[in-house]
Amino acid sequence: MWSTIGELGEFGLIERVTARFPRTGDVILGPGDDAAIVTAPDRRVVATTDLLVETRHFRREWSSAEDVGRKAAAQNLADIAAMGARPTALLVGLAAPPDLPVDWADGLAEGLRAECAFAGAAVVGGDTVSAGEITVAVTALGDLQGLPAVRRDGALPGDVVAVTGCLGLSSAGFSLLEGGIGGAEDAARVLGLRAPAGGPGWLACLREHRRPRPPYARGPEAAHLGARAMLDVSDGLVQDLGHIARASGVGVDVDSAALVPEPALCEAVALLEELGRPGRTALQRMLFGGEDHALAAAFPPETDLPPQWRPVAAVTAPGAGGPGVTVDGAAAEPQGWEHFR
Amino acid sequence: MWSTIGELGEFGLIERVTARFPRTGDVILGPGDDAAIVTAPDRRVVATTDLLVETRHFRREWSSAEDVGRKAAAQNLADIAAMGARPTALLVGLAAPPDLPVDWADGLAEGLRAECAFAGAAVVGGDTVSAGEITVAVTALGDLQGLPAVRRDGALPGDVVAVTGCLGLSSAGFSLLEGGIGGAEDAARVLGLRAPAGGPGWLACLREHRRPRPPYARGPEAAHLGARAMLDVSDGLVQDLGHIARASGVGVDVDSAALVPEPALCEAVALLEELGRPGRTALQRMLFGGEDHALAAAFPPETDLPPQWRPVAAVTAPGAGGPGVTVDGAAAEPQGWEHFR
Repeated sequence: MWSTIGELGEFGLIERVTARFPRTGDVILGPGDDAAIVTAPDRRVVATTDLLVETRHFRREWSSAEDVGRKAAAQNLADIAAMGARPTALLVGLAAPPDLPVDWADGLAEGLRAECAFAGAAVVGGDTVSAGEITVAVTALGDLQGLPAVRRDGALPGDVVAVTGCLGLSSAGFSLLEGGIGGAEDAARVLGLRAPAGGPGWLACLREHRRPRPPYARGPEAAHLGARAMLDVSDGLVQDLGHIARASGVGVDVDSAALVPEPALCEAVALLEELGRPGRTALQRMLFGGEDHALAAAFPPETDLPPQWRPVAAVTAPGAGGPGVTVDGAAAEPQGWEHFR
Repeated sequence: MWSTIGELGEFGLIERVTARFPRTGDVILGPGDDAAIVTAPDRRVVATTDLLVETRHFRREWSSAEDVGRKAAAQNLADIAAMGARPTALLVGLAAPPDLPVDWADGLAEGLRAECAFAGAAVVGGDTVSAGEITVAVTALGDLQGLPAVRRDGALPGDVVAVTGCLGLSSAGFSLLEGGIGGAEDAARVLGLRAPAGGPGWLACLREHRRPRPPYARGPEAAHLGARAMLDVSDGLVQDLGHIARASGVGVDVDSAALVPEPALCEAVALLEELGRPGRTALQRMLFGGEDHALAAAFPPETDLPPQWRPVAAVTAPGAGGPGVTVDGAAAEPQGWEHFR
């Protein structure tokens, strides 16, 4: 058997991983030709691309290969959902050193497959090249199903901003990993904590960080409900709502009382305090934490929102400082994530 | 002014480079939202992705940033053309160290823009992240204009295989660069050669290596002419025809007499001999050289081929060894490019 992708070779690796990827009704031509062919039923295609780089976006000691595959797929498929579209297809480029274990490449492919299956999409193509570090480049395609796209620039004063999905958990999970807590056994070793049956609740923060579960179906739902602006919350709620504020020329005022932390987040914050690494509060993590992959959307005030959409902010006329985000009426320092800085 | 992309920051860099990219009639929504939206007039979209990694696929001392941008776009847009489709859009991911000069990022963007303009496509989205090495991840989309896609698996015994575009020049250009010859002044310095007015002919090999010019419009033309199989010649003619042979279950016999080297290729091979680096002959470079980005297609024998399509091989029943490629009836050793090996 081959133990590294260098021994297996480019074509062997491609053959091996593409064998995992099932077709869906959207796949006209899958991997193996110069290009793939995917359905675009309403004569428009939604497309987005993202890169994940080892040590910047994931660490092999913190996340399994399957985790990385799921996350790489999820963050792109979430961008498709954030336009109000149904994800249809994924293309994946893998740059990796020749000594990468074949098992790791298998795990990555399995993660990509599983997340696509969860979102209703299919892996239709890709590329593999040798490189000094691992980079996973993912492109996702989607179908708007005849609905208008939900962009960032349509919010109007008076609209209600609602969120669906988790806020703050991924940030707390990241801090736990930085503190050496990758599971219940680490907490037992470091703090002598005994896990309750079924595991401690804060494990959900590690899960959300390693394998975010974007609420894909809520994207098209928001479009059906008449959402006027929407985005994927990936760089922190305040920073991302700032994109809607500036694109729409409005103010967005977050009501902090509406940001009720999940028990898992509160447990993780308490554990971080016990570890002597308190860092941000639960509320700060919900406002500024990254990689949530929740959806935030501005709806007309009369919209009858399903319970999964939690109102958290109001759209207002822009304040004296121009379009931007406030929290409880006061200026919020941007503390989201930006590359290169 | 900012001198590195680290000083400029992620959002500054994105704003700066996207300002360069004009819209075309296919762009419904360009860069700046969660995802782009592109027309797919016949309810199908063709999609392909490729990675370019510094030192593996390009070297900053051999190619300008604009060269790298043009080549990154060209190799993906060529894959779209090789399906018989019209390129419509490009998405580009850039992973780069924070100390990358802003000038280099500008040049890359200019190269992407220029090649898209040449092919009739538009840059509609992307991503930038920090990394230890430069990786350019490109995804191209295309429109089949109602025609059947030209895959790799439709060639039939009796078909004529024809090529359009350059063969062997990129391979000779690469060897010249390896020999320290990046232009006419290097040849003057190393060999005392004085360049004729207008420059020596072998410069075309350097140009083809740095900025391949795929014959985009010939892809849809082949589909109109009824091509039964087609691909982009990127890993060497023999290796790539092998993909058609195996996918179609046929033999492909190349007629070496039909491979007439261009004068530029002959000049480059002569120059390499003078440099004491003879390497492959002109014919070997046409058979096995990589990164040509020509198109090769199998046409029914009665096809009235335009002069830009040069017949070079015949499709036969598979030989005793199964589907594969022969040259003048004899087995050809595969000598194309494969990653990781």
